Amino acid sequence: MPPTSNNDLAAVKSYLLGLQDSICAALEAEDGGGRFREDAWERAEGGGGRTRVLADGSVFEKAGVAFSHVHGNQLPPSASAHRPELAGKGWEALGVSVVVHPRNPYVPTAHMNVRMFSAKGNPPTEGPSSSGCTPDSAATKRASPGEATFWFGGGFDLTPFYGFTEDAVHWHRTARAAVAPSGDGIYPRLKKSCDEYFFLRHRGEARGIGGLFFDDFNELGFERSFALARSVGDAFLEAYRPLVARRKATPYGERERQFQLYRRGRYVEFNLVWDRGTLFGLQSGGRTESILMSLPPAVRWDYGWQPEPGSPEARLAEDFLRPRDWAAL
Amino acid sequence: MPPTSNNDLAAVKSYLLGLQDSICAALEAEDGGGRFREDAWERAEGGGGRTRVLADGSVFEKAGVAFSHVHGNQLPPSASAHRPELAGKGWEALGVSVVVHPRNPYVPTAHMNVRMFSAKGNPPTEGPSSSGCTPDSAATKRASPGEATFWFGGGFDLTPFYGFTEDAVHWHRTARAAVAPSGDGIYPRLKKSCDEYFFLRHRGEARGIGGLFFDDFNELGFERSFALARSVGDAFLEAYRPLVARRKATPYGERERQFQLYRRGRYVEFNLVWDRGTLFGLQSGGRTESILMSLPPAVRWDYGWQPEPGSPEARLAEDFLRPRDWAAL
Repeated sequence: MPPTSNNDLAAVKSYLLGLQDSICAALEAEDGGGRFREDAWERAEGGGGRTRVLADGSVFEKAGVAFSHVHGNQLPPSASAHRPELAGKGWEALGVSVVVHPRNPYVPTAHMNVRMFSAKGNPPTEGPSSSGCTPDSAATKRASPGEATFWFGGGFDLTPFYGFTEDAVHWHRTARAAVAPSGDGIYPRLKKSCDEYFFLRHRGEARGIGGLFFDDFNELGFERSFALARSVGDAFLEAYRPLVARRKATPYGERERQFQLYRRGRYVEFNLVWDRGTLFGLQSGGRTESILMSLPPAVRWDYGWQPEPGSPEARLAEDFLRPRDWAAL
Repeated sequence: MPPTSNNDLAAVKSYLLGLQDSICAALEAEDGGGRFREDAWERAEGGGGRTRVLADGSVFEKAGVAFSHVHGNQLPPSASAHRPELAGKGWEALGVSVVVHPRNPYVPTAHMNVRMFSAKGNPPTEGPSSSGCTPDSAATKRASPGEATFWFGGGFDLTPFYGFTEDAVHWHRTARAAVAPSGDGIYPRLKKSCDEYFFLRHRGEARGIGGLFFDDFNELGFERSFALARSVGDAFLEAYRPLVARRKATPYGERERQFQLYRRGRYVEFNLVWDRGTLFGLQSGGRTESILMSLPPAVRWDYGWQPEPGSPEARLAEDFLRPRDWAAL
């Protein structure tokens, strides 16, 4: 695998900053009134970010689009538990995260993330790695002196309150088309990873209808792995915006609003109990407000609540919150 | 340390069931309208519980008072990580948990828990334990064949939205008086443990004004350790009810309500990110609705929100969310 250079990192950073800009611009246009406010921040240990939040828009009750680029001289042990050969190395992490909580319960909540991680190769102090060349172990391959180990991660997933088959099909077909140039086996793998990752084990329930998820990805080399990440980032608006446009004016009442607030509780449960990025960030001294930007603006929990059998609320779990090959419908 | 017998377990169970009844009766009386509804449940692996929730009361927006008694033939490795000598043994766990979310923002949120754990001594398969008799290591002392290892845990803590010195003093003096019969050093220790436990590390902020917290407690032998647990359980209403009575009719507006909803977000963050009992329960297949009974009924998150300097909302963090010897005021 070719090493990443400073030029490579600069190219990723430039792409991510542009992605943040274009997503913010599109969401503002779709909202028709709300504006993103930016917090630029720095991290004492190195790096920083720009967190943008649109609050109380006409269409979006809360939307967050965050860029961060943080680095350090010594990868903490917690970050290298499964990659002991990287412990103590210099590292950089950069990414864009998007979470959109619409006001109208017929518009689904959406999440997107693209990230890259790089650890600088130091002179080896032990023998060569015994790892093979399978996709999974490639990510942990020992870098040669001066080389950098890198990987990409990200994806997007959709969390509807009321399911619509045509929306689910559009979302997943857009996902499939986005990653098609990366190879035949990629879509089913990233689709399956997404279903597996966004799953609330304590509820036995999917967070939503899935999409794409990948992590520790470098098996195609830098250029093509970066291209995959770009495809995902670029396809997000194409996948999401038509659903917002189609549903944002659908009339709804207190019943639908209450169901939306209740289901947002599941979103909080997933992010705070299971999401690896959130937990790592909170436990390792990340910027709390930027990490928790993902939480919904208003939420409720009702003990033992169950939807009425046969109701639209019951159909969410029955028909949508289970893995299905929507793109093939 | 004397072993616990079946009689001991029966006595603890009887106490806990009575405690649940008396707390529910007092909260209903204080509410003046709301009624607890009970869910009795069984656990496939052994045991069960009765979860009681009062929803949408006049005074209490949500109150949960749960009893559970669960048991198994083999302690799972995750539960015995710090007590390897207990791995695979038969065990019983029983307790009562209380969480009260009042409607009026001037009434604080309160939490109480009393629990007992017992692991049955199996014939030893290794040499004798090398542990000493310090309080901490006593809990992990190897039980003789047929003996049972036990420990108690619990406490109560208060989470105000608007702080009142007289309320904090009453709460902590009641706590101090409750545990005084257990010995001179107990109160400062349990008070300090509470401040340390109910702390949101990702916010650098206390959950509330604390109270009492103990765990792995058996250093006084069964009878006196059980007496300490009873003192805590019995003192809860004495500590809390006068505060509810004093504040429940205080007029408030939308500003106070919104601050309450916002601060409840911190409660969710603590319970889902840091609370060991919640995480263990959710990750080990506990009854989700009973575990998450603790979550507030309505919550909000606002990115980057800060109270106005000098406002009553700012005084919460400045004057109350920091460890202080309130009982000595």
